[in-house]
Amino acid sequence: MADQTSFSPPGTAAELEEGTALTPKFDADGLVTCVATDAASGEVLMVARMNAEALRKTIATGEAWYFSRSRGALWKKGETSGHTQRVVEMRIDCDQDAVWIKVEQAGGACHTGRRSCFYRAVSLGKLGALTLEFRDERVFDPTAVYRNKD
Amino acid sequence: MADQTSFSPPGTAAELEEGTALTPKFDADGLVTCVATDAASGEVLMVARMNAEALRKTIATGEAWYFSRSRGALWKKGETSGHTQRVVEMRIDCDQDAVWIKVEQAGGACHTGRRSCFYRAVSLGKLGALTLEFRDERVFDPTAVYRNKD
Repeated sequence: MADQTSFSPPGTAAELEEGTALTPKFDADGLVTCVATDAASGEVLMVARMNAEALRKTIATGEAWYFSRSRGALWKKGETSGHTQRVVEMRIDCDQDAVWIKVEQAGGACHTGRRSCFYRAVSLGKLGALTLEFRDERVFDPTAVYRNKD
Repeated sequence: MADQTSFSPPGTAAELEEGTALTPKFDADGLVTCVATDAASGEVLMVARMNAEALRKTIATGEAWYFSRSRGALWKKGETSGHTQRVVEMRIDCDQDAVWIKVEQAGGACHTGRRSCFYRAVSLGKLGALTLEFRDERVFDPTAVYRNKD
């Protein structure tokens, strides 16, 4: 390899799973799934996607970059809000189509103002209509933070 | 709603984010992303997908069910290996297209024999060829556990 955004193509299942080369298995849209957890608490903060460029930039800079499917654009986490993610550790899964980053999260990860995007619990053991229970309070005011957002 | 596998369709962004109704936003393939973490350690064990039926079964039974994209089939985690996941808590994210389950994992989550699928670390701050560093040992012998696998 390789320029700054490309990776070597995935090999066999054995190479993907037991190899020491990072050869991400991007999906048909050129994306892998990324889970960001709080390096201190272990809490899942968010789930998003990375394309090759976002993955490269995250590895090179140690700060989280993602690819927005809705906007079709690369974005640096916190570029609008200031709520950046410093990557403490990155892991790749067995078939190299998912990344786990442990991060130091400035402010809150969620655009709604919560620390984590996963601020509501689903009741288990239920059928029929399912209600959600709020578990987390806001840690910032999204209308203030995103006032100048595009 | 609803029969045992369907959910009410997603509403507006405000309803999705601030509402108390579970209205998952399935993608074009009818799937949401699911992150399973170890309820005790917080470690990310695996990332997989759920269709409506898998999500319903997981909520109803308190054990993790997924949908395999490669096999195009519903599967109960541990149905072959015995390495089931008892769901302690389920969370849904802001736009309701990702689920986080905290689980009690029997054996190992990964078909390669490790506790977690994320058993390799990616070195940060590097460009060019990237190598992976193994972090986790096997907790079971996959050739023995999956001997009778289809």
